[in-house]
This record gives sequence, structure tokens and C-alpha cells, in this order.
Amino acid sequence: MNRAARAVNESRELAQWPIDALRKFRDREQAAYDAIKKRAIAFNLARGKPASEQVALADQLLISVATPEECWAEDGSDCRNYYGSPQGLIEARRLFAPMLGAPAEQVLVANNSSLELMHDAVVYALLTGARDGAMPWRDQARPIRFLCPSPGYDRHFQICEQYGIEMIPVALTGAGPSMDEVERLAADPLVKGMWCVPKYSNPTAETYSSETVARPAQMPAADDFRLFWDNAYAVHHLTDTPDPLDNVLDLCAAAGNPDRTLVFGSTSKITFAQAGLGLFATSPANMRWFVSRASTRTIGPDKLNQLRHVRLLRDEAGIAAHMDKHRRLLEPKFAAVLEVFENRFGGTGVAVWSRPRGGYFVSLDVLDGCARRVVALAKAAGIETVPAGRTFPYGRDPRDRNIRIAPSFPPADEVRAAVEALATCVLLATSERLLADHGVNE
Amino acid sequence: MNRAARAVNESRELAQWPIDALRKFRDREQAAYDAIKKRAIAFNLARGKPASEQVALADQLLISVATPEECWAEDGSDCRNYYGSPQGLIEARRLFAPMLGAPAEQVLVANNSSLELMHDAVVYALLTGARDGAMPWRDQARPIRFLCPSPGYDRHFQICEQYGIEMIPVALTGAGPSMDEVERLAADPLVKGMWCVPKYSNPTAETYSSETVARPAQMPAADDFRLFWDNAYAVHHLTDTPDPLDNVLDLCAAAGNPDRTLVFGSTSKITFAQAGLGLFATSPANMRWFVSRASTRTIGPDKLNQLRHVRLLRDEAGIAAHMDKHRRLLEPKFAAVLEVFENRFGGTGVAVWSRPRGGYFVSLDVLDGCARRVVALAKAAGIETVPAGRTFPYGRDPRDRNIRIAPSFPPADEVRAAVEALATCVLLATSERLLADHGVNE
Repeated sequence: MNRAARAVNESRELAQWPIDALRKFRDREQAAYDAIKKRAIAFNLARGKPASEQVALADQLLISVATPEECWAEDGSDCRNYYGSPQGLIEARRLFAPMLGAPAEQVLVANNSSLELMHDAVVYALLTGARDGAMPWRDQARPIRFLCPSPGYDRHFQICEQYGIEMIPVALTGAGPSMDEVERLAADPLVKGMWCVPKYSNPTAETYSSETVARPAQMPAADDFRLFWDNAYAVHHLTDTPDPLDNVLDLCAAAGNPDRTLVFGSTSKITFAQAGLGLFATSPANMRWFVSRASTRTIGPDKLNQLRHVRLLRDEAGIAAHMDKHRRLLEPKFAAVLEVFENRFGGTGVAVWSRPRGGYFVSLDVLDGCARRVVALAKAAGIETVPAGRTFPYGRDPRDRNIRIAPSFPPADEVRAAVEALATCVLLATSERLLADHGVNE
Repeated sequence: MNRAARAVNESRELAQWPIDALRKFRDREQAAYDAIKKRAIAFNLARGKPASEQVALADQLLISVATPEECWAEDGSDCRNYYGSPQGLIEARRLFAPMLGAPAEQVLVANNSSLELMHDAVVYALLTGARDGAMPWRDQARPIRFLCPSPGYDRHFQICEQYGIEMIPVALTGAGPSMDEVERLAADPLVKGMWCVPKYSNPTAETYSSETVARPAQMPAADDFRLFWDNAYAVHHLTDTPDPLDNVLDLCAAAGNPDRTLVFGSTSKITFAQAGLGLFATSPANMRWFVSRASTRTIGPDKLNQLRHVRLLRDEAGIAAHMDKHRRLLEPKFAAVLEVFENRFGGTGVAVWSRPRGGYFVSLDVLDGCARRVVALAKAAGIETVPAGRTFPYGRDPRDRNIRIAPSFPPADEVRAAVEALATCVLLATSERLLADHGVNE
């Protein structure tokens, strides 16, 4: 993209500065950068990892099932011993049913990872078909395809990559993926799935509008097309007015596509990360499909940890109260990021960024072609972010502009320091690029 | 098989009785059976499920990580939060390394099911090849095949059935599978795996001899052939002189086939069933292969439960001491089964049975063609065993003679009563069959 086009499309100010002023600006940022590098303090903004104070909110889990008498489920089974259903304890399914938007009969509570539930659903569809009697995805004439709203969650894309599923990026609108694009692409019978993080999306923090939920529920698509609805941040609000999200399972059923959607959730960012529970909800037919295959894989999940969660969180209101404590810990960190971005980038036109109302990330778009340089500068100065491009299929950001910021783990003052340093990297990389566009290479 | 052949091959006494005596015998057993049925007491000998007193041996697990200070692993990571390696905590890997016969670097400690590790290894090989660069099993010209020493573990066979892997039964010798047969079959390049329970096998309780470990380690086989070595009962002894089992990983390495074997284990019958740990050991190359794929599936296992196990069991000696307590609880139950069988069947020639030195099962072989009838009679009288045939691929016992007895769960007096009742079913079914062979149908 040439300089004129960029000036019109994205930059309001910095791009229009005369060369001399730009050069001075670049020199100042370079000096600031050199000073940061010299300090050599390591910061990590890479991972959506809860802070220590956040996991500590659930410390009661450690003793919520502490005696043999507390090991019994409400159906009278001893959770220290084998127990039939891979669907998990009914009291745990009831606890998370509202969060998933399905009755407890249509909910499965698993071990500590929702990613593995998504992975396994893909594997079962690849090897045995996405419904009983359907042709396995793996046996269909050519490699199947998934729609990938991007930027998105790299671990979704990695599942596709591991199994040779072709990924088709779809643009995001701020209210979910472009549905015109999705409808056009889903007409291809080889398109079998779409990755969706419908609420406070990773990384853009957008929530799907009513239209963006209704249209994929209704659109024509292959009979074995599935929405992988990763509602990872269902209750992870940062405001008093949570984003509403329509119930995709209900809309699919109403549209005559009851088996179209697999809904996933997790307590990884509610209780203990990686020692919590993975959650899954879908239609009755899909649940039978999944459970029949999962029953071949395992006798069932760890039910003691399910009991621990039931005793800690109790009910929907208990979850909401618990999430409110998380919010109080996260708010100052998100505020720090946004304040620094506003201070450093406001009016410069060098970046646009999300203002999350929930979730775990701030998404930063710098000028086209600058993200890799920014991330490299940051890394050399001790500030870790996810590698540039990682939020796109195959790790390729076509415009090389997206950077995902995860401010949850470090203390707020460190977040501020890290984002200040990152802003310096952005301004340095941008001024370098603008000077290069002017033909100035020094 | 006609009566004469059976008399020669299997029965010593009952089969040679005159018709009148046999009829009287049958009538007496029928009366005994009717009385049992009338009592209508339900017994369950179906599942290899630890008794309540057995899981209670590990109750300390409930509080072995009870405070935030106790949540930290020896590498300084907080087990309440995300943590990199899907291989599990090093202290947990070190704890189980001797049991698996591999250094800790070659051990993976996972969530609560070893079956799921076996399943996933099959899936990864089907979809991505059994080693980096190998053709996926699923893409090879014709359906691939697994060797299935039988009778064996039905859940192994179910994995093959779910994914269309052809199963070839292999006879057992009392010291593992017939290796002449295995070597002949493994020459077929479509044979990609063999299910093995090498110690106190399920259900026959036999342990593989040195020859039965060494020969599959050395034999010519496809480059992507894998031994699925499910050492589920590695430390589950019932005598003072545990069966020795040679180290298959060492033998494979010495034979120049270092990547041939995947070793599995579990604490399901050590600590809490279904709330314990799944274990896996293999060559360094295979471990990289598995971990790279498992890393796509999950961020990692629940490490808190790993810490709990480390704190409870401590080391190899701790495991052995713990298993000794299990042995004391199991011994009287196994003794009851063997005593009843000896009393009721001794000298009659109507059955042969295993005399387990470890593990969880007694394997009972009745006269050919009688197992289904015995199991049906038992079920009608309230005694549950696994369905006849279940211990063979596709649920088909070609001689319809094997019945698996799991005596661990009920109290010893109930085991005795249940097996007495089962013995009546065996004697009734056998006398019915012998009379039918005499042409007596009444």
C-alpha cells in the first residue's frame, strides 16, 4: 500500500508530517527505545493467563471436597471410584447449563480443557463423520475447509493445521464475522466448520450481534457443517452492562438446523487455569454422537474436581459473584493499556485498538506491514507478546498489522510500563516505515 | 465339537456320566438355581472396580494439597495456573518412572485415564502417521490391522472397532500370546499394532515370559508397527513373589527398534479410580511425536492432581507399600472365588480357570458353547458378569466359553455367594448341554 493510500485509509496525522519533523520524531523514539532496552526489564504480555490473585479467588476449591463424606454425588455415587457417564455429574451440568444456554441434559462437563473437547469433536468428525451415518470428513473427495474469522485464536487454527483442514480467513466487522462472506463461502459443500469466539472475542473483544448469530444458524450449508462456538468468555465481563449474546442453539433449532452448533466453555479463567473444567453443550442428537465416541476413549472425567466446583460456585449467581471479583482485578490492567494507548497514539493515526467490554485481550492494529517489526523490537527490549501473525490462519497476517495484548498476568504497574515500552516500539517502527515510504533510508 | 471330542479334549468326568445320573444332576442344579432365582439377590461381578475400602486407602489425596502454599511444583510453577508442558510435572514423572520402566524424561503424566492416551495415540497415527513423515494409517491402501491376544480387554478392541481397524485374534499360551502366530501375522505390512496387557493380563492373569517380551521387540514388522503395551497391573500383585516382567522398551532399543513400543499405565487401581492419573512412556522420538500432537489438543494436564499424588505416594517404595494394603483387601475375595470353583468344579471337568498372582480378574472357561447360556442364567438370577464374548474382538468368542469374573468390588462374603450362584449356573448349563449332546431334550 502506498503512502497516500495509507494516509487516507488509516493515518490521520503522523503520516502527513514533513520528513524533517518525522526524522526528529523517529530519533526521539529511538533514544527512548534504547533507554528501555538498556533497562532490560522483562515483561510478558503474551498469554491470556490469570494473575496469581485471580486464581487465589478459587482457593476454597482446594478443600471444598476434603473428607470421604464429601465425596458423594447427589445420585449416590462415590466420586473416588468409577462412575459411568462421560457426560459428568448432573449437579455440575446443571451448574453450567445457564452459562452454556442449554438444559443440563444437553451439557457435558469434562476434564480441564475445552480445547481438547473441540479437538476431539474435529477428530470424531474426521474419522467417523459429523453425525451417525455421515461420511467421515477425512474420506470426502478433497481436503475439507473451515472458515476462520480473523484475527482469531491461534489454537483453533492449529487443530486445523495438524489435520490438514484448509483454513479460509473471514474478515471481522466489530460485531462478528462478515456474514455476507460467510454465507457465500458456506455454500461450498467442502466447508465443514467455522471457528467462532462469539463473546468478547479473542483477540478483538467483539461480541456477535443478533444478526451475526442468526444468519449462520439459518444459512444453507453442508449437512455436516458445524459451528465451533467457543464461548470462552461467556461470563467474563468488564462492565456493568454485559454484552448480550443470542442463544445459537435455540436459533439453530428454530431454523431447522438443530445439530449445526457445538458450544464450548471452560472454567480455566473462572477457577484454576488448567485445573478447572471443560464444558460442552449441543443438540440431543449431537450429544449422543459425541458421548458414544468419547465413551470409547475414556470411562469418564474426574468427578471429584466437578464436585469441588459445584461446592465452590453453587449456581449461576455464584458464578456471577465470583466473576465480579475477577473483574475488579482485571479492570485496572485494561484501563492502564487503554490509557497508555490513548496518550501515546491518540490523534497520531498510527494505530487502532479495541476497547474491551470483557474477555482477556486488547487487539492492536498498527500500520500495515509494521506488526512484525514492532514485535521484534519489543522482544529485543524484553517485552514478550505473541508472535506477529499468530492470530491468523497459518500464522500469516496478510496486512502484518495485528498484535494481541494480554494484560491479565502482570501487576497493573508492570502492565503500564510494558505497554509504554510497546508504544515506543510502535512509534519507532511506524516512523521508520513512514520515512522509508518517503524514500529516507538511514 | 461333538461329545466324544469334547470328552477327550476338555471334560474328565461329568461328560462321561450315564444319561440317568446326568439327568439327576441337572435336576438338582435346576432346583438349586430356582432357589437362587427366588432369593433374587443382586450381585455384580462385571467390573474391575476397586472396593470402597480400597479407594479409601488414598483418602489422604483429598487434603494432600490443601493450602495455596502447597500448590507450587518443584520447578517453581503455580499449579493453580497455566503451565506449559503436556508431559506433566517432573516430580510426577519421576515418581512413576520405575513403574513404567523408563527415565522420567521419557514419561508423560496425564489426566485421569490411560485408555484415552491409547486412544489418542491411535488417532494421531491414523491421521498424521505413527512417526513424523510416515503415511497416516488412515491413508494406507487398505484398512489396517491390529493383533488382539484374546481373551483380552474389551475397551482396547472397542477403539479398533470405532475406527474401522481390522482385529485379528491371537491365542494366549499362559505366558502371553503365541509368538509363532504373532511373528507370522506381523509380516503383513498392514498389521500396525498389537494390544498387550503384559502383566496379570485382563482377564487371564497371565504374565508375558521373557521370550514373549523379547520376540515382538525383535521380530520383523512394518516400520510404523506399534506395541500398545498396557501395563495396567504393573504393581498389582497378590503374592509375595511378584511375576517378573522384562523391560520391553530396553529390549526394543537393544534390537534396533527403539520406537516400537508405547507403554501405558494408570493409578486408577492405585489411588482413586477415574480421579487418578494416566501414564505413558516411550522412546524419546515417540515422546516428541506424541507431545507435539497432544500440545495441539490441550495446554496440559491438571497438575494439582499430579501434585496430590506425589505428596501421597512419594516414591517407588511408597507405591509398593500402598499396593500392599490393596493386596490385603483383595486376597480374601480372590481366595473365595478359587475356593468355590475348586469345590464345585474340581474333578468334574466342566471348567478351567485362572489362579491369579495379580491383577483384577479370574478368567473362567466353561465347556464350548456354554458361556452365553451361563451368563444368561446368571443374569436372570441377579448375578451380573460382563456379557459373554465381550473379551474377544467384535464381541465374538469363537468357542463361546470365556467368562470374566471381577471379584474386587463386593465384600468377600458377597463374592462367595455370587460365585456359588454362578457355579450353579455353570453346572446347570453344562448338564443341559451334555444331555442335549446325548439327544435328550426335555
